[in-house]
Amino acid sequence: MPSKITPRDKDYSKWYLDIVQEAGLAEASGVRGCMVIKPHGYAIWENIQASLDRMFKDTGHVNAYFPLFIPKSFLAREEEMAEGFAKECAVVTHHRLKAVPGQGLIVDPDSKLEEELIVRPTSETIIWNTYKNWIQSYRDLPLLINQWANVVRWEMRTRLFLRTAEFLWQEGHTAHATQAEAEEETRRILDVYRTFAEDWMAMPVLCGPKSDGQKFPGAVYTVCIEAMMQDKKALQAGTSHFLGQNFSKAFDVKFQSNEGKLEYPWATSWGVSTRLIGALIMSHSDDQGLVLPPRLAPIHVVIVPIYRKEEERKSVVDACHELAQAIRSHDIGAWLNRNPLIVKVDDRDQHQPGFKFNEWETRGVPVRVELGPRDLAAKACVLARRDLPGKEAKLMGIPLAEAPARIFDWLKAMQSDLLEKARRFRTANSFHVETYDDFKKKIDEPGGFIWAHWDGSRETENKIAADTMATIRCIPFDRSKDPGKCMVTGKPSEARVVFAKAY
Amino acid sequence: MPSKITPRDKDYSKWYLDIVQEAGLAEASGVRGCMVIKPHGYAIWENIQASLDRMFKDTGHVNAYFPLFIPKSFLAREEEMAEGFAKECAVVTHHRLKAVPGQGLIVDPDSKLEEELIVRPTSETIIWNTYKNWIQSYRDLPLLINQWANVVRWEMRTRLFLRTAEFLWQEGHTAHATQAEAEEETRRILDVYRTFAEDWMAMPVLCGPKSDGQKFPGAVYTVCIEAMMQDKKALQAGTSHFLGQNFSKAFDVKFQSNEGKLEYPWATSWGVSTRLIGALIMSHSDDQGLVLPPRLAPIHVVIVPIYRKEEERKSVVDACHELAQAIRSHDIGAWLNRNPLIVKVDDRDQHQPGFKFNEWETRGVPVRVELGPRDLAAKACVLARRDLPGKEAKLMGIPLAEAPARIFDWLKAMQSDLLEKARRFRTANSFHVETYDDFKKKIDEPGGFIWAHWDGSRETENKIAADTMATIRCIPFDRSKDPGKCMVTGKPSEARVVFAKAY
Repeated sequence: MPSKITPRDKDYSKWYLDIVQEAGLAEASGVRGCMVIKPHGYAIWENIQASLDRMFKDTGHVNAYFPLFIPKSFLAREEEMAEGFAKECAVVTHHRLKAVPGQGLIVDPDSKLEEELIVRPTSETIIWNTYKNWIQSYRDLPLLINQWANVVRWEMRTRLFLRTAEFLWQEGHTAHATQAEAEEETRRILDVYRTFAEDWMAMPVLCGPKSDGQKFPGAVYTVCIEAMMQDKKALQAGTSHFLGQNFSKAFDVKFQSNEGKLEYPWATSWGVSTRLIGALIMSHSDDQGLVLPPRLAPIHVVIVPIYRKEEERKSVVDACHELAQAIRSHDIGAWLNRNPLIVKVDDRDQHQPGFKFNEWETRGVPVRVELGPRDLAAKACVLARRDLPGKEAKLMGIPLAEAPARIFDWLKAMQSDLLEKARRFRTANSFHVETYDDFKKKIDEPGGFIWAHWDGSRETENKIAADTMATIRCIPFDRSKDPGKCMVTGKPSEARVVFAKAY
Repeated sequence: MPSKITPRDKDYSKWYLDIVQEAGLAEASGVRGCMVIKPHGYAIWENIQASLDRMFKDTGHVNAYFPLFIPKSFLAREEEMAEGFAKECAVVTHHRLKAVPGQGLIVDPDSKLEEELIVRPTSETIIWNTYKNWIQSYRDLPLLINQWANVVRWEMRTRLFLRTAEFLWQEGHTAHATQAEAEEETRRILDVYRTFAEDWMAMPVLCGPKSDGQKFPGAVYTVCIEAMMQDKKALQAGTSHFLGQNFSKAFDVKFQSNEGKLEYPWATSWGVSTRLIGALIMSHSDDQGLVLPPRLAPIHVVIVPIYRKEEERKSVVDACHELAQAIRSHDIGAWLNRNPLIVKVDDRDQHQPGFKFNEWETRGVPVRVELGPRDLAAKACVLARRDLPGKEAKLMGIPLAEAPARIFDWLKAMQSDLLEKARRFRTANSFHVETYDDFKKKIDEPGGFIWAHWDGSRETENKIAADTMATIRCIPFDRSKDPGKCMVTGKPSEARVVFAKAY
């Protein structure tokens, strides 16, 4: 049957939205810029949360919850933060509606708040206002806290998952006795993000600082993980900020050091959001629909019973459920943090197998099992893998007793194959350029990650952005020493930085 | 050392707030009516979430996420809902701040929204607006969706966990083809709540409908679980609403039935919130601090090494960590949904054992292990249980090899003992009364759950509330047939209902 999904090379943006819709991940709501995350999309987010949360806890962090609302005066205390977020925030000004005959429900003017409240765009200010009570002595440090929450930024141009007025995220906020510890934490978390991106999302990332022009408002510096999407654009997938003493000073938080001196603690903050679901989609999916790395898939295996006659139905469906149980019981160690594989038997009567195959392919289930009367007679089944092309994608006549192990092998292989494929794609679309003319050509066609020399100035960065729409995505930690001259100004440069157009 | 906690019989309200503070559960924030949930309090919420989420999924529900903001016109569509929530809601009217010299950061008047947005007090309206797109045919039903989210109700008198402007909760919203299915769902969920309250919170609950005067705005009827706190007041711990076709009609959601007719689906909604943490505290805690049912405790066992001399330290602390590992590895089956016991070794050098004992008692850790050089020489340890009085609370000379099994036995015993104790307390403080005079006396002194006859009218209910502050908490499903006469009007009554003063 014809796919409802626009091919990538025809219209990439439309392809993305088609996948989001046809895979049942999210949709626009009746509220400007806010999305509804549908059950299949939310299940991916739950898997992302579960594995990241485990990693945060394994590195000593605990969760807490801080208020949704931030008094306007809090935002005003840190200048860069106020500048960065004031332009796009939801402001609560009243606390009551009233019904007025003829006008319906109106905002009650008598309920005006003395001080307006901002719906949190990020929580540094409200959290550091709280930390003032929690931090007195070096014994109270480090404070390693994370929050899972919704935040709001009044974006004008929104796109499902990638940029929405409200989104879900986690935000870590830590306080340390020394600068060195805080910087170490900034890097430790970036390493957690990199590990998560590679091992769970099967998404290779560049790691390194942002340029000053791209850092978080209020940070001393920001380090990031940066991924390449299938249209060769960059997507910032996670950021970790070294905040120095900016927030401890703005909120007057001091502690007594072990030498008895009063000092300002050092801070970090870091976050990833539902944007990662957009990154997942654009890293792996194809023109048939969603492709998910198995470790984050809400359903790992779908079993489709195949029968023509009603008298075949029961034995085939029973065999499917028996196989499902065997797969669920298969020992997969810690591959899913000690959770079992999720297996669904699609025994709906109203649909034909072809319809079901198509539906589960669109929704990104990694492995499909087909089981009919002839298979059953031979005590075998057919396996199909979502990410492989043509004949490679099918294994016929797999003995039922072997199926759970074969399926798990395939899931592991698919997980690493997706990472390798994405890595090859990134390598094939990364270029070194020497001149600004060449840069301006390449950034449009073929596009990709352009490694070029830059003089380190904000001015040059802004000029390049104005000329080409490309920005510095990352100054990779592991870039090789390669001194040269800035492609724009000719001033000296130690090593190349990575430019790209970005989401 | 003297407890920092006010005794219950001296000042119950102060006792509650002292526990919340000293156990590190929550605190007031800089934002009116909003609380900060501290790590130890949030860890309890995570445990509540995990076990309830499992129960929802086991009964066929999936999670999704809907917008934080609700257009004012949505709220207006269902009359009772508009009436019920308009008086206490946070209203977003603008989307930008701007810096004005001399005035600082002000709300930009040019950013006024065309339509005001309400921060969700509950999500029926936004969700039914979405369901309009999701429900076309009987094949789309039932729709069984839950959401974990924050909500805001602008309460004037707030109390940590029990009543706050912002709180965390889950809200289920289901749609069904028939009235019978929706009513069955309403009851199924109440049964999940009852099971959770009893088996996890160790909190006995009455189950049954609310009177019309106490039902949810927009519901046809509400059923609830209702618990008794240690001051004998009632606390509504969870509600499940049969919404009839009120919301499908208000949002014009129709489906084609399997007979080809266009019909309005039938709805339910149901929720529990962070209020449950308040209920936990007031069900079990004592004048020493928090007492937690072991299945919801963030830490099940704390091990305190005891040593005087530095040369003893290493061997004792090592033995503590070894024992911790043995307890973590102890097979506890599905008691914690396949998670292991959480064990903490408190090897902080700066504090004495007595300080540590007190701290972990205050924070509600169910079992403490003490291990010193003499214990180590005897390959034994001391166990102490949080909820038992005096000598009963200690087991001396438990062989280290037996400790994990003995500890697990104690945790299970404590879980059921807490439930039994709360049940006995409720029984001892429940009374039948016949006359209104007697009612008015008993409701003040001794207080408790008063089973009395009521004529079923809203008018009588209101009179009783006005006279005594007591409300009808529940019309228990399992009340015995016991015809009588309303204590106020003398009109006939089928059976007794339960009155109490309530949180």
